[in-house]
Amino acid sequence: MSHSSSAQPQSSPASVASLAGRARAASRALAKLSLGSRNEALLAAAQAIEQAAGPILEANRRDCLAAEASVAAGKMSSAMLARLRVDERGIAQMARQVREVASLPDPLGRRLSATELDEGLVLYKESCPLGVVGVIFESRPDVIPQLASLAIKSGNAVLLKGGSEAAETNEAIVSVWRRSLGRFPSIPPDSVLLLHTREDTLNLLSQDRNVDLIIPRGSYELVQYVMQHSRIPVLGHGEGICHVYVDRAADLKKAVAITYDAKVQYPAVCNAAETLLVHQAIAAEFLPQAVARLKQAGVEIRGCPATMALLPNGGLVPATEKDWSTEYSDLVLSVRIVPSLDEAVEHINRYGSHHTDAIVTEDAEAARRFMNEVDSAGVYQNASTRFADGFRYGFGAEVGISTSKLHARGPMGLEGLTTYKYKLYGDGHTVAEYAKGLKRFTHRRLD
Amino acid sequence: MSHSSSAQPQSSPASVASLAGRARAASRALAKLSLGSRNEALLAAAQAIEQAAGPILEANRRDCLAAEASVAAGKMSSAMLARLRVDERGIAQMARQVREVASLPDPLGRRLSATELDEGLVLYKESCPLGVVGVIFESRPDVIPQLASLAIKSGNAVLLKGGSEAAETNEAIVSVWRRSLGRFPSIPPDSVLLLHTREDTLNLLSQDRNVDLIIPRGSYELVQYVMQHSRIPVLGHGEGICHVYVDRAADLKKAVAITYDAKVQYPAVCNAAETLLVHQAIAAEFLPQAVARLKQAGVEIRGCPATMALLPNGGLVPATEKDWSTEYSDLVLSVRIVPSLDEAVEHINRYGSHHTDAIVTEDAEAARRFMNEVDSAGVYQNASTRFADGFRYGFGAEVGISTSKLHARGPMGLEGLTTYKYKLYGDGHTVAEYAKGLKRFTHRRLD
Repeated sequence: MSHSSSAQPQSSPASVASLAGRARAASRALAKLSLGSRNEALLAAAQAIEQAAGPILEANRRDCLAAEASVAAGKMSSAMLARLRVDERGIAQMARQVREVASLPDPLGRRLSATELDEGLVLYKESCPLGVVGVIFESRPDVIPQLASLAIKSGNAVLLKGGSEAAETNEAIVSVWRRSLGRFPSIPPDSVLLLHTREDTLNLLSQDRNVDLIIPRGSYELVQYVMQHSRIPVLGHGEGICHVYVDRAADLKKAVAITYDAKVQYPAVCNAAETLLVHQAIAAEFLPQAVARLKQAGVEIRGCPATMALLPNGGLVPATEKDWSTEYSDLVLSVRIVPSLDEAVEHINRYGSHHTDAIVTEDAEAARRFMNEVDSAGVYQNASTRFADGFRYGFGAEVGISTSKLHARGPMGLEGLTTYKYKLYGDGHTVAEYAKGLKRFTHRRLD
Repeated sequence: MSHSSSAQPQSSPASVASLAGRARAASRALAKLSLGSRNEALLAAAQAIEQAAGPILEANRRDCLAAEASVAAGKMSSAMLARLRVDERGIAQMARQVREVASLPDPLGRRLSATELDEGLVLYKESCPLGVVGVIFESRPDVIPQLASLAIKSGNAVLLKGGSEAAETNEAIVSVWRRSLGRFPSIPPDSVLLLHTREDTLNLLSQDRNVDLIIPRGSYELVQYVMQHSRIPVLGHGEGICHVYVDRAADLKKAVAITYDAKVQYPAVCNAAETLLVHQAIAAEFLPQAVARLKQAGVEIRGCPATMALLPNGGLVPATEKDWSTEYSDLVLSVRIVPSLDEAVEHINRYGSHHTDAIVTEDAEAARRFMNEVDSAGVYQNASTRFADGFRYGFGAEVGISTSKLHARGPMGLEGLTTYKYKLYGDGHTVAEYAKGLKRFTHRRLD
C-alpha cells in the first residue's frame, strides 16, 4: 500500500463526517481558483499518473491477484476481473483523459442571462460549482482520474467510494492525485478524498450538510440502495431500458444496422437496446432480415404474438408482459409489432426508463413527433442508442448518466457538476419604492 | 360550492393515484401544444376569471366567514385571514398576472446547444416540459392562477393542494380554469387538478411514477414534512436566513436604507434579512444610525458582545449562538461585528440558508469576492435582499424559491418548470465504427 505524507488518513465510520467537512473546506478554496490554476493542476496530475505507473500497476497486480482467487472460488465473475485490470495502455489513457478535460472550455462563471431590473439594478445569472460531490462506483479504477478531473475543472471537491476489490489500485491513484495537488499552495489535497467500506457509503449518504450531490455508478441494486438511503440529492439511472423503433418509413439497411449495433455492440451497458418496436406495415420485410442478423450474433429473441406468427420457425421465444420492462444487459432482445407511431410512443413512455430511444425513419414528420413525444433524456433519429455517452457527446468524459429530469438529464459532464447563482448589482436599491409604486421595473434583457 | 360539468370528482385517498395518472395523460397532450395554443388558453382563462368574479368572491366570503370564526376562537391568526381574503382588486390582479405569463417568451423548444458529433450526426440539447408538477401551498388563493399559468405556459400539468381554510375559493378558481380549458379541444381540463385533504398530500408524495416534481410553498414545518415524506424530488426552501453585510467601504446612507428595507419592509417573508454583519472598522459610525432607524420601526436588536459594548444604552438584547441560525420572520434582527470580509463570508456560509445575502460596499474587489465566495442562490451588491422574487427578477411570477443547488436555484419561474432532452439526428450511424477506430468524432460546436 502506498504511503506518503499527503496520503489521507484511513477513513472509519466515525470519520466520514470529518472527511466531508474537509471536502467542504477544500471546495471553498477550489471555487476561488482561476481556470489557469485548475488546468495547471490537471496537467500536473496527468503527468504524475504517468510517472507513477509503476506503483499503480503494482497495486493493481495485488488487487488482481486477490480477484483471481475470488474468480477461482466462484465469488467473482471473470468480466469483473477484466474491468479491474489496469495495464500500461490503461495508464496512458487515464493521463490522456485528464488532459482532455483540461482542454475543455471553462464551465464556471458563464453568464447564463443578464437583465436590467431597473436603472442601475442589473441581475446576472452565472454558473458556479456545486461544492462537494460524492461518487459511489464499482470496479474500474480508471474512472477515478475521469471523476477527479471533471470535479476539479468544475471547482468541486469529490469524495470517491470505489469497490473493495479495487481498493489498492484506487488508493494508489488517489495518492498520486493528492500528492500532485499538494504541490500547488492554492489547491487543497482534500479536493480528492477516498472512502473505503460499505459503512463509509452509508455514512456518506447522511452528510447532507457538506455533500451537495451523490452520483451512484454501478448496478441497478447499487443505485436503488443509494436512492433509498440518501438524505442528499441523487442523480443516476435506475435502469437503461432503451428502445429502437423501426417506423413504416424506415430505410431497412439503416434499421438492421442500428438494431444490431444497439443490441450487440456492447450488450452489458445501460444504453444498449432491450426492446425492438416495429411498425406493422414494414414488419414482414424487416424482421426476417433483422432476426437473421441478430441470431448470427447469438441474440435470443422474445417476440410478441404478431412477431411469433410472422416467424413461426425462427426459433423465437414468446415474450411475456414482464419482458417489456426488463433490462437484460445481455444478448436478449424483446420484439413487438405496433400498429402505429402513436402506439410505439405510448409503449416507450409506459415501459421504458426514459434513458435513450431511437426511431429509424426517413419521414421527418414521424421523427419530429417521436422526438417531441418520447419522454426520454435522449431521442434519436437514425442513430444507435449506444451513442448516449459523455465522451461521444463531446463532454470529454462523464460523471454518470442521469435518467432524472431534474438538474441534469442524460450523460453528465462538466455542466452537470455546476449550478448557478444570481448576482444582483445595485446602487442602494430598496424594495419599498417599488412596493409603493414610486419606481417601476424595466426588466430589459441585456443578452 | 361550485358544481359544473367540468368540475373534477372529489378526491379521496384512493383516488390521488388516479388523479396523478390523469395529470400525466394531460401532460402528454400539453407537451404537443404550440406556443399559440398555450397562450390562447391563458388569455381565455384570464377572461374567465374576470367573468367569474361573482362566484369566486362568493366562495371566498364563505371561506372568510369560517375563518373569522376561527380567528374569534383563537384558532387562526388574523394575518392568515388577511391573506385568505380576495376582493375585486384581487380578481383583477389574478387576471393580470395570467396575461403577463402569456406575454413571456416560449420556455419550450429552446436550443441550448448544438454539436456536430461527426459528419451527418448532429446533437441538439432542447428545453422541454418536466411533465407533472405538484404544488402544496397554504392560504393565499391568488397563487392558483400564477401556478396554473406558469404550468400551462411551460407545457406541464399541475396538481394543486391548497389549505383547507381556502377550500371553497380554491375550488371556485380551479373550476373556472377547468371550464375555460375545456373549451379548447386540444387542451385537457386535467391539466389543472385540485387536491383537498392532508391525506391527499401524503398520497401525492408517493406518486413518483406520475409526478415529476413537488414544490412546497409555506411554513418551514410544511417544507420539512414534504421533504421527509416525498419519494418525488422536492424543490423549496427550508429556511430563509438572509444576511446584510456592511463592508468597511460601505456608503453609510445606502447601508442604512438597505438594512432597513431588508428587515422592515415585509419581515414575515423568506427574503427578509435576519442577521446584520458589520465590519469593525465602520461599526462605530454605522451602527448607531442603523439601530436608531430600526428602533423607530420597533425592531428588536440582538447584538454580539462587541455590538453590546458599542451601544451599551441602546436597549439591545445579547445574542446567543442560536440567534445566528434563527429565521425570526418578525421585527427582530441579530447583529454581529466581524473583523474582516473573510469572517463575514465564513459566517454566512456557516449559519445562512443559502437563500440571498447582500454586501453593501463601494469596493468592487470586496464585492467580487463576496459574490463569488458566498454560497447562496442570490448574492447582491448594494441592493436589498427583498429583491429575491420571481416577479422582481422579471419571471412574470414564480412557482417558488429554491435553496437547493440542483435543477433550479433562487426564484423559479418558467425555466424551473422545464428540463431538456438531447435530440440526435443521424443517417444510420452505429457506434461500432467509432469503437473500432474506423471513424472519429469531430465534436464541432454549431452554436
